[in-house]
Amino acid sequence: MSLKKPFILINFKTYLEGTGRRAIELSQIAERISSDTGKCIAIAPQFTDISTIFDKCKIPIFAQHIDPIEAGANTGKILPESIKEAGAIGTLINHSENRLKLSDIELAIIRAKSLGLVTVVCASTANISKAIAALNPDMIAIEPPELIGKGTAVSKTNPAIITDTVSLVKEINNSVTILCGAGITNGEDVKSAIDLGSEGILLASGVVKADEQEIILRELALQL
Amino acid sequence: MSLKKPFILINFKTYLEGTGRRAIELSQIAERISSDTGKCIAIAPQFTDISTIFDKCKIPIFAQHIDPIEAGANTGKILPESIKEAGAIGTLINHSENRLKLSDIELAIIRAKSLGLVTVVCASTANISKAIAALNPDMIAIEPPELIGKGTAVSKTNPAIITDTVSLVKEINNSVTILCGAGITNGEDVKSAIDLGSEGILLASGVVKADEQEIILRELALQL
Amino acid sequence: MSLKKPFILINFKTYLEGTGRRAIELSQIAERISSDTGKCIAIAPQFTDISTIFDKCKIPIFAQHIDPIEAGANTGKILPESIKEAGAIGTLINHSENRLKLSDIELAIIRAKSLGLVTVVCASTANISKAIAALNPDMIAIEPPELIGKGTAVSKTNPAIITDTVSLVKEINNSVTILCGAGITNGEDVKSAIDLGSEGILLASGVVKADEQEIILRELALQL
Amino acid sequence: MSLKKPFILINFKTYLEGTGRRAIELSQIAERISSDTGKCIAIAPQFTDISTIFDKCKIPIFAQHIDPIEAGANTGKILPESIKEAGAIGTLINHSENRLKLSDIELAIIRAKSLGLVTVVCASTANISKAIAALNPDMIAIEPPELIGKGTAVSKTNPAIITDTVSLVKEINNSVTILCGAGITNGEDVKSAIDLGSEGILLASGVVKADEQEIILRELALQL
Repeated sequence: MSLKKPFILINFKTYLEGTGRRAIELSQIAERISSDTGKCIAIAPQFTDISTIFDKCKIPIFAQHIDPIEAGANTGKILPESIKEAGAIGTLINHSENRLKLSDIELAIIRAKSLGLVTVVCASTANISKAIAALNPDMIAIEPPELIGKGTAVSKTNPAIITDTVSLVKEINNSVTILCGAGITNGEDVKSAIDLGSEGILLASGVVKADEQEIILRELALQL
Repeated sequence: MSLKKPFILINFKTYLEGTGRRAIELSQIAERISSDTGKCIAIAPQFTDISTIFDKCKIPIFAQHIDPIEAGANTGKILPESIKEAGAIGTLINHSENRLKLSDIELAIIRAKSLGLVTVVCASTANISKAIAALNPDMIAIEPPELIGKGTAVSKTNPAIITDTVSLVKEINNSVTILCGAGITNGEDVKSAIDLGSEGILLASGVVKADEQEIILRELALQL
Repeated sequence: MSLKKPFILINFKTYLEGTGRRAIELSQIAERISSDTGKCIAIAPQFTDISTIFDKCKIPIFAQHIDPIEAGANTGKILPESIKEAGAIGTLINHSENRLKLSDIELAIIRAKSLGLVTVVCASTANISKAIAALNPDMIAIEPPELIGKGTAVSKTNPAIITDTVSLVKEINNSVTILCGAGITNGEDVKSAIDLGSEGILLASGVVKADEQEIILRELALQL
Repeated sequence: MSLKKPFILINFKTYLEGTGRRAIELSQIAERISSDTGKCIAIAPQFTDISTIFDKCKIPIFAQHIDPIEAGANTGKILPESIKEAGAIGTLINHSENRLKLSDIELAIIRAKSLGLVTVVCASTANISKAIAALNPDMIAIEPPELIGKGTAVSKTNPAIITDTVSLVKEINNSVTILCGAGITNGEDVKSAIDLGSEGILLASGVVKADEQEIILRELALQL
């Protein structure tokens, strides 16, 4: 499954509503809405659920993290090859809940690219986005940590951080795609994020923790 | 699948020989030898491979690590529930390649126990084993890091570390099972580890990286 | 300057009220009260202030942390020799704001002891205290993290954690001294901590952030 | 003491030859050579030695690290204010022996700047240097980790990494000063580093571990 821009990327985090059997159900909801609306929806489930979702759903899958390691003696770490073989087409890197050392971000990007994995590197500020752009990822997701999970969309609260990110990143590397995250809960938030120059939406609790996952996700997709 | 003591626990680490399709093949080898010999063989594959192995093999599966977290906003972390739902019956904790803070070892043990997961906590010295025993894990694996992957068995090089561990740990908590790791490559190593008081063997490269995985594992199992 | 039990150990943390010139002033207050009351008061200032306090005050000085390293290429780390040569007689290890891996706690204790430095290892639960006792530190400070800086004394809120710690630790290693921390703000708290079996008090904001540092510290010392 | 470009910055790391009394002696050597030659020599001693060196020597002092924290409850951490009050004019950040998360590099730079401290951020590759330039430090020290302490100068082995760093960084932020580190042991290495576009030299073992610290440092200074 390949990506088509603009797209929505749903991060399942370690919510129980996105674990195991419920991860599969949510992936099937996403697949159905994607099919109905023609919009691209990707997911980032937990490592343990990637292969089962890959077997059961036609939907682009990202890992939530990779470790910047080579195959070898690394017990409990996430080998980039392992998520690829399980069915992922890409990975989040440096999520605010899993920040990496700068040197490890560079290594993780290099490792992922060598395997043909799409890299979505998360950033908390416009300057951090600019710094990451120097490392040539495929995509940068700008997410002010103070807005994550808060239900207040960055595109409303702080639109300048998106437009600044877009302009600073494009200055460094024009081929980087900008995603926008943090606090997105309705279709209007999606629309304004796209209008401000992002080409995708990264969100989590707004869908995963919603009482009506299918209804809210459909609303978001329709505004993409 | 439940454990029967004594047993062999094969840690696949992040070796390519134990990733994806090759993880399944190695699990099937272990299952076959276990069936042939009547000896218990368990495996600790990568997170991404747990559910597929669970579907295809009758063999006790451990995770290589869990994070001491509750369900929630923990992108890229290993939720204990996720490995259980994928099919693991237990988990390694504090492997020398993934050392935890002391307070996190306590939390990880508590979380795993609350889910009925078997805890195998790794230790590098006899005193560390004693310290871990105070936190009431199910099992402690004593592995001097300087011997890991070296092909020289701890049971030969430093038998006192095993007997010291057994006596110190039993003093604190008599119900803890001792596993012995590091450098085990042949049946004689297995036999002497058991003779010294351990009730299981933790090993990795000796099997996973072997040219003839099936031959070596069968030799080890026969000496159990 | 040597320690005399029971004693008060004031952790300056990185409070501005305990940094630089104000660290020296607070140390002089402690020295004066110690001299007036005959009670032992020790301090744990920031690394940068150890040598100046050592020059100007007769008072036992602890570091707030050491890294479990040997002399060598460790830029920005805390070499145990460096705090000793600056004038410290001991060090905190594994404070709740600076938790260490279990294997590093063992190494830090070994390194400190080899230099004759007194080790005060912090613990958050009675079982953690028991675990640490297996590593043979000189002292264990039991500090439930949820009470740190809260102004509610552990000796009042959760006296059982102190008595449990004392009995579990003594079971393992009878020569370990127990300190009691978290939330101590007045003389009565000190008295009850000592009555419960601890031989010292570890505190920080209760003195360092007090409007009247000298008045509160004198009250605490008188109840020791 | 202020900096004058070009300059040599000697990182004392945690070498015993640069700890305590021997840190003062080495600082006095540096001061004397600086005075004799008119060249600027700065030092980065351990935290515990900053204030004593500040009292005894007229020489620009850097810390080896700061934590990206505010004053408060951070036991064992390095408060930027603490190194300033001890006498440092600046700090290393993100040394290869003390790598930081990308978001912490940004915070550390912001905190240091707010106190008027000079920031020297270390980088291992030209692209990492470019990324750091986006965060607006005062200086970037390019040090390929594989050459550190090896006695083979980067300016000889891999001159392109210096010229690439200079051009990539200047593209982003023309006001950033480039230092060159790793493997510098003689005057010729200094000269070639300067010729390649760096405005300073960061070195450690080449001077600190030298049998004749004064002779080698004088040779380096004369080629500056």
